[in-house]
Amino acid sequence: MALLETIDGPEDLKALKEEELPALCREIRDEIIATCAAGNGAHLGASLGAVELVVAMHYVFDSPQDRIVFDVGHQAYAHKLLTGRRKEFRSIRQEGGLAGFPERAESEHDAFGVGHASTAISAGLGMIEARRVKGESGRVIALVGDGGMTGGVAFEGLNQAGYLERDLIVILNDNEMSISPNVGAMSEWFSKKFAGHTFNRWRRSVKEVLYALPHGDQAIEGIRRAIDSSKALLTPGILFEGLGFQYIGPTDGHDVLSMVRILRQVATEIDGPVLIHTRTTKGKGYGPAESDLRTRGHGLTNFEVATGRSVAKKPAVPTWTEFFAEAVSEHMAKDANVVAITAAMLEGTGLVKTRERFPQRVYDVGIAEQHAVTFAAGLACEGLRPVTAIYSTFLQRAYDQIVHDVALQNLPVVFALDRGGLVGADGKTHQGAFDIAYLRCIPNLVVMAPADEQELRNMLATSLAIDGASAFRYPRGSGLGVPLLPPEILPIGRGRILHPGGSKPDVVVLGYGPMAHAAVAAAKALHGEGIRAVVVDPRFAKPLDTELICDLASTTGRVVTVEEGCLPGGFGSGVLEALQENGLLVPVKRLGLPDDFVTHGNADKQKARFGLDATGIAAAVRSLLDGARAGVQAG
Amino acid sequence: MALLETIDGPEDLKALKEEELPALCREIRDEIIATCAAGNGAHLGASLGAVELVVAMHYVFDSPQDRIVFDVGHQAYAHKLLTGRRKEFRSIRQEGGLAGFPERAESEHDAFGVGHASTAISAGLGMIEARRVKGESGRVIALVGDGGMTGGVAFEGLNQAGYLERDLIVILNDNEMSISPNVGAMSEWFSKKFAGHTFNRWRRSVKEVLYALPHGDQAIEGIRRAIDSSKALLTPGILFEGLGFQYIGPTDGHDVLSMVRILRQVATEIDGPVLIHTRTTKGKGYGPAESDLRTRGHGLTNFEVATGRSVAKKPAVPTWTEFFAEAVSEHMAKDANVVAITAAMLEGTGLVKTRERFPQRVYDVGIAEQHAVTFAAGLACEGLRPVTAIYSTFLQRAYDQIVHDVALQNLPVVFALDRGGLVGADGKTHQGAFDIAYLRCIPNLVVMAPADEQELRNMLATSLAIDGASAFRYPRGSGLGVPLLPPEILPIGRGRILHPGGSKPDVVVLGYGPMAHAAVAAAKALHGEGIRAVVVDPRFAKPLDTELICDLASTTGRVVTVEEGCLPGGFGSGVLEALQENGLLVPVKRLGLPDDFVTHGNADKQKARFGLDATGIAAAVRSLLDGARAGVQAG
Repeated sequence: MALLETIDGPEDLKALKEEELPALCREIRDEIIATCAAGNGAHLGASLGAVELVVAMHYVFDSPQDRIVFDVGHQAYAHKLLTGRRKEFRSIRQEGGLAGFPERAESEHDAFGVGHASTAISAGLGMIEARRVKGESGRVIALVGDGGMTGGVAFEGLNQAGYLERDLIVILNDNEMSISPNVGAMSEWFSKKFAGHTFNRWRRSVKEVLYALPHGDQAIEGIRRAIDSSKALLTPGILFEGLGFQYIGPTDGHDVLSMVRILRQVATEIDGPVLIHTRTTKGKGYGPAESDLRTRGHGLTNFEVATGRSVAKKPAVPTWTEFFAEAVSEHMAKDANVVAITAAMLEGTGLVKTRERFPQRVYDVGIAEQHAVTFAAGLACEGLRPVTAIYSTFLQRAYDQIVHDVALQNLPVVFALDRGGLVGADGKTHQGAFDIAYLRCIPNLVVMAPADEQELRNMLATSLAIDGASAFRYPRGSGLGVPLLPPEILPIGRGRILHPGGSKPDVVVLGYGPMAHAAVAAAKALHGEGIRAVVVDPRFAKPLDTELICDLASTTGRVVTVEEGCLPGGFGSGVLEALQENGLLVPVKRLGLPDDFVTHGNADKQKARFGLDATGIAAAVRSLLDGARAGVQAG
Repeated sequence: MALLETIDGPEDLKALKEEELPALCREIRDEIIATCAAGNGAHLGASLGAVELVVAMHYVFDSPQDRIVFDVGHQAYAHKLLTGRRKEFRSIRQEGGLAGFPERAESEHDAFGVGHASTAISAGLGMIEARRVKGESGRVIALVGDGGMTGGVAFEGLNQAGYLERDLIVILNDNEMSISPNVGAMSEWFSKKFAGHTFNRWRRSVKEVLYALPHGDQAIEGIRRAIDSSKALLTPGILFEGLGFQYIGPTDGHDVLSMVRILRQVATEIDGPVLIHTRTTKGKGYGPAESDLRTRGHGLTNFEVATGRSVAKKPAVPTWTEFFAEAVSEHMAKDANVVAITAAMLEGTGLVKTRERFPQRVYDVGIAEQHAVTFAAGLACEGLRPVTAIYSTFLQRAYDQIVHDVALQNLPVVFALDRGGLVGADGKTHQGAFDIAYLRCIPNLVVMAPADEQELRNMLATSLAIDGASAFRYPRGSGLGVPLLPPEILPIGRGRILHPGGSKPDVVVLGYGPMAHAAVAAAKALHGEGIRAVVVDPRFAKPLDTELICDLASTTGRVVTVEEGCLPGGFGSGVLEALQENGLLVPVKRLGLPDDFVTHGNADKQKARFGLDATGIAAAVRSLLDGARAGVQAG
């Protein structure tokens, strides 16, 4: 670490000789591998793939005056190491430590905060345009993966960038995969599989004439060779040049000296938008990651450095994700009309196994959530039953499609929202905090959350049985370990009493999703204190079981709502609406996520902090009862 | 109307001889013009431009077995006339009449409901894929404008369509403008302004060799000519062929017989995805629309057929849109850091005039709401103050960008939401129903609604003064005619009493946005009945003026909330949360839009139906008081 130790900021990097850069890259790589192996950083593959690119960018450009904008941010670890955060680097993604993604609040070198894909071109274009308006100089460089390039907003950004003709530099980091191997026709531009009919037709006619000419003539042979190789021209430069970008590449993104040379040339010689196409290998320089062809070490963490073998404890109970994917497979086996869709998250949603069984009925549409949802709407129009599995946070990308293409038309699309609730180390950009609120206001949509993995099975079966759109959300992590039964179709809008609370209960606790079981644990603890709590698993946030809730609210006179979602507009807010509409004036306490972006950390500890566990729920019940006893209405 | 009168469905169209089709097109055109002139249909330009395309599609394909999928749906009037809705056509966009856009519920020939742009490729791909899964045959044809093609989801759809290689037929209806003249680099593919550096370089080197060869040789001259014309090859076929589509075109979209021929050929001879590029003229066949180069008769309605001159009554008070645009111009004149953004709605947002004054600081990004918002975030990073003007319904497209790129980073982007509330004739797809709910759950965001045009001026000034993200929404239609004053910066999260209601008021009415004035009118009416209502203009839905609201709730003991937005999760729901958090148990009545998609009709009548006027508000107050008198808690 002789070189890396001298670097406390980009100016120290610039003090190195060019020939020292390859050694520095090796040191950065070692540090990233060690950190991920120790169970911190999780974006090993992407960050290893971009080491030389990041070093070259900081060597040539002057951050923070020049803005380096990352896309997704998976690939930013080297950037963090080079920009004054070396000493804290081992704390990455841990509570109180560095964020896993660039964050404006963390460093002046993090020009744009990120976590979702495909934003860098739009944000970078805004920055360079602002420089023009303000008459300021400075470069803006956007580093985008080939996966991020498939997101519609990236295309929208390219379209305006080419039109405005500003000096935006886009580096396309092409490793021929995003998180899963890349999909979509655009990747053919990159992978040279291109075959253009119009072009081929023209080429054929020119060749016919050409081949009729005498062979052996040097000039004619030159033309012949040029035309033979002309197909290569169409990949991928023409795509970007057609959008107004100058295209440079493909270049070797692991040759740091050559990247320095190219970036210098771009910085000094080229005006207008330019796209530098670099080829890299995800996981580069770490054998176990490079040889894992499926993910190239995307989520690799907690491993033995020598072998790449995981040393993480295998959880005793499978994850919600695994229960979901297994349940989808069961339905697909029984019903040929069931299909499944993921947006570049075959691994993350568990559908990778489902696709092995049903390769023709599981679609990975790439990083394209909007299309995923409208595609699902089209499938549903023709009588199929698409299950669209998208993380809560990423479904925000398809909000209009849910409203306009699915719910408005009452189409039977099933939304399976993984990562509903706190996600832990991924932090602010990835929290599944808003889905209950943003879905609950959409007409025609059935909105649910399973209390446990059996309920997840029931809700998938229910979703597939109803004649309209529905959504259910489940958390990251392991299931509860309840026994699995054949799935049951649930009555829509009906909750269930999970814990009766005796003949004259003091309070009703409504625990949405897995919070129902936490509420039961709270009720059992309170029992010892002589407090009787009836616990309801409401199952549905929409339509709400107004009858059950109002009955119990009026007999107990006190309501506690619990959800792992934002408090404004959430499940508890729906309960307030139901009580108000039924003229019931009873004290309510709502537990949920605060009206804030929750940072990275240990999700269980964070839940405890927000009162989202048995202890917190019991405390809320006590305070509600204390308030009542003191004659003060509880807040 | 001799031909059109014989057509009650596509089968009648097919009974016509080919040579009768041009005459039919003329009749359809006349009927569309007459309907729009009479003040019904508003999408004159787009629908006139697509007459021949629609006739040819229905002549060659077999709807509803073959699916004809419209994008946006502006261009669907001929389709409605040909599919059994001729007799009701004059009722289009009127209460109880035909919808202005395709709607699945209206006809089996409306394969996909639409109103927002860029969805047809994704939906059509879903349909053709479903046919494959089910082993069914049938064609799917998506008709997309060049404007719709700039939306990111269209690109996402093309990307998967090319990859799956299904028999999807896309007809690109290229009139070189969407609603405003088209923008973005992609239009250069269409407009033959293309210049590819890589391609040019290769072309140059081939030409050098070629020109060194002896002149006069016929074969060599042939090659020379071919290479000279080769640039044309790159527009626009290669773009689509690179994405896996076969490209046909450009064709003349007004030559109905040629379109019939081409579609027949595609239907019988071509497998895999195909894109037919047709050129048309918006407003075709109606001089006054064709010669209006800016909008080509986009919103033309209520006019004299001979001249195209509007016969609509000019409203006495300018629209909210006009007040907004004027206020933006005032700020731009004073502050060089203020810029404005629209997504293909220069006319609709009023910014067309602002751009005349500040051509370098008003951006039209095309139909690309996602990019508009992230671009604004980038501008804001560098110290500019972007005002992003997007209709409430279209801002749904940028939901993740608002959360992830703006609010999370606390960037000072101003969102001006036009058409907040009911929009009248545009109907279900365009209602501004959900914005209060979907924005209120986002942390860091200030959410407001002006009660009148002066308040709109104040809120724009306030938004531009605060150091973070904010949004305000205002309705379609004319302002209230209040006197205009210099804008005032409002204290954040503070409402105002608009009507005091005397010393011992019986009820507090919280009227969000212009509903505040309706509430004052209600309060005045109730005064004569001895009911004293204090009316609050809360100004902010977030942060709410909890102090003022709770004070008045506890002194009056009764609360009525009124908003032109959906009830679940809306402003009134926020009031319930505030009361609950402060332990106030008071009867509340919430007025707002129902939990349903509201169809097209007269917005004022619809508001009256939902109680969103003085009469409805007074009735709500009375029922709340009656409930209290009867000892029953009001719902």
